Amino acid sequence: MSKRSILFPSLKKYDNLSQVMTDHKLASLGDAYVNFVCSIASSKRKREPSSAKVKGKMLGEALKRAGLRGCLPSRMNQHTFADAAEALIVYAWLCDYVTLEDSVTMLGKTDDLIKGLTELLTTIKGKVKFS
Amino acid sequence: MSKRSILFPSLKKYDNLSQVMTDHKLASLGDAYVNFVCSIASSKRKREPSSAKVKGKMLGEALKRAGLRGCLPSRMNQHTFADAAEALIVYAWLCDYVTLEDSVTMLGKTDDLIKGLTELLTTIKGKVKFS
Repeated sequence: MSKRSILFPSLKKYDNLSQVMTDHKLASLGDAYVNFVCSIASSKRKREPSSAKVKGKMLGEALKRAGLRGCLPSRMNQHTFADAAEALIVYAWLCDYVTLEDSVTMLGKTDDLIKGLTELLTTIKGKVKFS
Repeated sequence: MSKRSILFPSLKKYDNLSQVMTDHKLASLGDAYVNFVCSIASSKRKREPSSAKVKGKMLGEALKRAGLRGCLPSRMNQHTFADAAEALIVYAWLCDYVTLEDSVTMLGKTDDLIKGLTELLTTIKGKVKFS
């Protein structure tokens, strides 16, 4: 059984990346997920429990570096870029495209959170498929 | 392989509940985990993605109802109770005593978050073992 069917069976069907990335409700769930995953990665790196508050600016920059800017309508601001990244990251996890463990590994490779988030988003971009 | 060994192999060894519950660094990681799990449970209940901000007061109350107050030193305040609950919840997840799915199920059974958190903490109290 997929994570989606266990945890959140009523998640609606999305037809493309743009639909996922502009869903603000998905972004609000994504915010909690991203803070959690980045906190685990930070704990692993520091070798002690810690929390990471992920700034919107970092998420927006990573989104652009991962080449996902083009999936969003023009005239969007930094805040919306961050929301888009959060929505996509939690969507990919819920739909089993990327595991929590893989995400932590990618984020933990570097002290540079923007780099880690860029790698995560690039991986997600390559894996997410719509039918 | 346990979640702990994959995600966070350097997590230190704790000898008893009190040590877990008074670790403030563990509480900071726990804060991110609890917000995330409660957000998933809230999304499942509302049948759409959403986020849940969990108030310290609720965590403290649940901790007392679960009969865990006695594991903490006297003269602690509400804020420390909340920290203790967060530390214990993430510890139980990291050490595979309770899965994410189980936690979401317990929290999602009721609209009353204090009740859900009480059930989660009571379950954890019954499962966590120290060698």
